[in-house]
Amino acid sequence: MIKKFKMATKFVLVTGGAGFVGSHCVVELISAGYTVVVVDNLVNASMESIRRVEKITSQKITTYSVDLLDKQALSDVFTKHKFCCVIHFAGLKAVGESCQLPLLYYKTNIGGTINLLEVMKENGLRELIFSSSATVYGTPEYLPLDENHPVGGCTNPYGKTKYFIEHILMDLCKAEPEWNVIILRYFNPVGAHKSGTIGEDPQGPPNNLMPYISQVAIGKREKLSVFGCDYDTVDGTEMLICHIVGCKLCILKVSTSTIERVYNLGTGKGYSVLEMVKAFEKASGKPVPYQLVDRRAGDVASCYSKADLAEKELGWKATRGLQEMCMCYMHAKILGDGSLQIQTDSAVERKIDDS
Amino acid sequence: MIKKFKMATKFVLVTGGAGFVGSHCVVELISAGYTVVVVDNLVNASMESIRRVEKITSQKITTYSVDLLDKQALSDVFTKHKFCCVIHFAGLKAVGESCQLPLLYYKTNIGGTINLLEVMKENGLRELIFSSSATVYGTPEYLPLDENHPVGGCTNPYGKTKYFIEHILMDLCKAEPEWNVIILRYFNPVGAHKSGTIGEDPQGPPNNLMPYISQVAIGKREKLSVFGCDYDTVDGTEMLICHIVGCKLCILKVSTSTIERVYNLGTGKGYSVLEMVKAFEKASGKPVPYQLVDRRAGDVASCYSKADLAEKELGWKATRGLQEMCMCYMHAKILGDGSLQIQTDSAVERKIDDS
Repeated sequence: MIKKFKMATKFVLVTGGAGFVGSHCVVELISAGYTVVVVDNLVNASMESIRRVEKITSQKITTYSVDLLDKQALSDVFTKHKFCCVIHFAGLKAVGESCQLPLLYYKTNIGGTINLLEVMKENGLRELIFSSSATVYGTPEYLPLDENHPVGGCTNPYGKTKYFIEHILMDLCKAEPEWNVIILRYFNPVGAHKSGTIGEDPQGPPNNLMPYISQVAIGKREKLSVFGCDYDTVDGTEMLICHIVGCKLCILKVSTSTIERVYNLGTGKGYSVLEMVKAFEKASGKPVPYQLVDRRAGDVASCYSKADLAEKELGWKATRGLQEMCMCYMHAKILGDGSLQIQTDSAVERKIDDS
Repeated sequence: MIKKFKMATKFVLVTGGAGFVGSHCVVELISAGYTVVVVDNLVNASMESIRRVEKITSQKITTYSVDLLDKQALSDVFTKHKFCCVIHFAGLKAVGESCQLPLLYYKTNIGGTINLLEVMKENGLRELIFSSSATVYGTPEYLPLDENHPVGGCTNPYGKTKYFIEHILMDLCKAEPEWNVIILRYFNPVGAHKSGTIGEDPQGPPNNLMPYISQVAIGKREKLSVFGCDYDTVDGTEMLICHIVGCKLCILKVSTSTIERVYNLGTGKGYSVLEMVKAFEKASGKPVPYQLVDRRAGDVASCYSKADLAEKELGWKATRGLQEMCMCYMHAKILGDGSLQIQTDSAVERKIDDS
């Protein structure tokens, strides 16, 4: 059934909008003419990324430092704006940490989402785009993963929170068909805005590969630990997806979207950890020292996507290759490492063209 | 690994202790020499069942009208008592309602359990018995169901809350091995205390079969609706389990229990809905009018258990047959229907012997 999102206003609420994927989404939303309001508890992000988004877009972004577990504070945000849609990125996302602190992950991700859904309902808003993860597929039975691949069998609490939330959303849509929900399953999102102004700059040690590699490349960290070299992949290290963050077309197409649809967002091609290291070394011109260590709990060997459905129905496609992405990323990281020097888009694009 | 529960005190907290299974458990705990404290939000139970348990046991039961979603109120209970163990029954349990109100079910059952676990941890208590459900098995791949049967594929939000909570508990035990958790999977628990003083007496229309049949038998409801007559069973109606509530031996054996073990609690034999109706008619001597209507969302055709593991490791065994259970049940219901006349155990036992 094709249902139109009721886009009565152009105000979009982005939860977790100061985070990695969220901040890139905010830029794309503003480019598409939306007015964005951000809520973020700033636990794994900082206001600095919002300031950078403001620089890129030359717009002031209304941002509330609100934890989704604080339902009253979230309700207050809804009294101040009339939203047409919520894009929900907020949540804890570190696989390893989730194995150590499962209660925190279940409470934050599931509890926060339920509060959000309740507040939306109380305010008559039922249009939601949820940022899920490829981890819901568990260990792949075949590759590339399409949206019909069985889900469940997740190997870590983080992935289970995404899987459980997907169930909650689907049950909600079944009980109340007036909800419009899109679930986007991200495949190892990596990337940085081409201006280099925003990238992935977590508080504390990075849990994802690319910010870690880049911190090694600029000397902030000594070396990269490659977890496991005995996987059944091209060189024994894990297969990852080089996926350029890109919400632009999803948002633009949202007005003709379908109810409760699930889309993979990925490039359709997998790279091993060592292939990523090599690409990064080439893009940055700097060596990335690494050591092979034991496998990490909760990781799967290979996971890459078939994203044909997102291309067909949303017009979404990963538009940047590995090399280009590494360049953007490297650039953002160098800027992020204290200097905070903002270059013009053309300067960065020139660098990319040269690579 | 065999681990002993640290039974430093004899105080046991029973969440949902005013409910159907909970109140029977309280009786058994008191018989076994424990001091019981009940928390119950009284949404689907009443203080009347606590008063009846007090009559049966001749003991005052400390009861707090506390919702597990109110974490502060729950914390306050823990400051007043030093518990050796929590037996966690609290939660919403109506399959049909869960399909209509999924958010309420996810919030209440999962949110309540996470609050409980956090408060336990904050108070240094990590011994838990969780009341799960056979619904976690979804549509059976084989019968009888043993504990190794695949879980997941639940057909309704209620069952999913139990399934998700099992995952949360298992992840918690993995992260913090000092937790001792037992998961009991109940198979359509039905029954009543042999005194007839307590039974299943829900607020509003009963969602389970036995209280509904008994309300039809005493004329409180006109007729029973049998949901679906085209199931692949002996007479086309759903297969159910006649399982006499019995926590006694589980509790007694808890001191030699194992960590994070899962046990089926059931009789090992299935009865169809119409077989249950016939047995009830025989026990009560009254007709139970019924009509065949369409299948109900979320029901599965057959589901009965292999409970050998519970017998072997916990010494638990269903001890009463269908006929005897119907008699106890009928008796409790008649008493529950306004007259509230309490008979002595011997009077009821005589009736049972006559049946």
